[in-house]
Amino acid sequence: MDLDNRPIGVFDSGIGGLTVLKSLAESFPKENFVYLGDTARLPYGSKSPQTIRQYTFQNLNFLCEHDVKALVVACNSASTQVFENTFQNRPLYSVIGPGADSALRVTENFHIGVLGTRATISSRSYEKEILKLAPEAHVFSVACPLFVPLAEEGWDEDPITNLIAYRYLQALSSQNIDTLILGCTHYPLLKNSIQRAVGAQVQLVDSGLALAEILQNDLENEIWRPNFNSQLERSPDGKISIFITDESSQFRKLGEKILRGHKVNEFNLVSL
Amino acid sequence: MDLDNRPIGVFDSGIGGLTVLKSLAESFPKENFVYLGDTARLPYGSKSPQTIRQYTFQNLNFLCEHDVKALVVACNSASTQVFENTFQNRPLYSVIGPGADSALRVTENFHIGVLGTRATISSRSYEKEILKLAPEAHVFSVACPLFVPLAEEGWDEDPITNLIAYRYLQALSSQNIDTLILGCTHYPLLKNSIQRAVGAQVQLVDSGLALAEILQNDLENEIWRPNFNSQLERSPDGKISIFITDESSQFRKLGEKILRGHKVNEFNLVSL
Repeated sequence: MDLDNRPIGVFDSGIGGLTVLKSLAESFPKENFVYLGDTARLPYGSKSPQTIRQYTFQNLNFLCEHDVKALVVACNSASTQVFENTFQNRPLYSVIGPGADSALRVTENFHIGVLGTRATISSRSYEKEILKLAPEAHVFSVACPLFVPLAEEGWDEDPITNLIAYRYLQALSSQNIDTLILGCTHYPLLKNSIQRAVGAQVQLVDSGLALAEILQNDLENEIWRPNFNSQLERSPDGKISIFITDESSQFRKLGEKILRGHKVNEFNLVSL
Repeated sequence: MDLDNRPIGVFDSGIGGLTVLKSLAESFPKENFVYLGDTARLPYGSKSPQTIRQYTFQNLNFLCEHDVKALVVACNSASTQVFENTFQNRPLYSVIGPGADSALRVTENFHIGVLGTRATISSRSYEKEILKLAPEAHVFSVACPLFVPLAEEGWDEDPITNLIAYRYLQALSSQNIDTLILGCTHYPLLKNSIQRAVGAQVQLVDSGLALAEILQNDLENEIWRPNFNSQLERSPDGKISIFITDESSQFRKLGEKILRGHKVNEFNLVSL
């Protein structure tokens, strides 16, 4: 099989998608990545489906201009408005399918909770995807609008975040869920508070990790071609290029915290 | 003096500026108003000065296309990037000057607190304006990024909001402030929690109310001309037209709550 050294393109409305990029870079250390954070227009989670879809396709076009070989929509709110499997002849991945699929592999009682932004929850995308795969499942969804700003404050395991998590997740307490999808790229940053609120018996599903597994599967099925054949050569690690549409010191600080241990080779401000 | 029935234009990054519109509509019930909420790109408070200024001038151009006679930047984060007194030959108002001026009329000990978004606080706009007018003043500023989403959740006087207000305002407790500027249009929606955290002896200054007073003053000085001479005729109340750049059910719900008692004559979705 010919190798393909073009990068994998990943976008998110902002910084949260770096949790997905990190999962991917750990699963595919030899690949190059181009990441776009649409920080000038974030957050998407409070916006309308029409506006989210318009921004999503502008972002995908930007990544295609950087000659990517595959496209990843890391943002859950954006993923709810992506119904295609390809874009400009490249495989197109979103986090909804992998997240739903992963939850169904984890659950034993088929009572599954979903947390997300207002946009993600009102789209009912996770619920529809889960019920398509397992009509017997019961899905309980909760919008958690304060979780993104709490994650950006860096307040995981803070008593205030614990209280807010209890408030939001109270609605799930009588539903006997054994699995909970973290349906927003920011939420893994609050996983300790969320786990505490739902109890240790509930398994948290991180869509970013789930997505990395799907990409692994597609790599084995030659849906996309790798950069290096690691069995044949000792090759250097891939490069990570990050583009943002607005500069903020908060982005750099939180970004470095999320990506700790990964070198960013290029960091640029762009206009869309 | 000739009358001028053109509307007064007001913009905010989103919904918070309706608190300012309400103050203005109550002060000038015979005036027509055009309000623009840039809901597709909100919030501005986490964005860079360059991006905020770019969005601000796009919004001002939009209002001028609606033939306004005066322009009001209700958004504090946007106001920090407005250094002009006129735009396209119309008087241009922002909330920084009126807020600073009002705080100085209220304070007795010249120890003044300022709350705002990250963008507003890091611009130091209130501090500079206060010190220009009263070099002997002491200004203590605190960024409160969670207040906007808490206001959007409608959680004023909620135990969680009280806790967060205590956390943010703790830094002010040893500064002996007697006056506190609510430097974001959303913050009046949390005034009970904020007042509780700082204590009843501290006067809260709402920049929107302060702005209405400055407009009253400029009306008397013929900087702008009114729509109706209320002493000469019994005229109907002015019209309120609202434009938003993205539709969200949250906007309508919170908007109706803020504007309670005021009729909105026109409500439109627009692209900038």
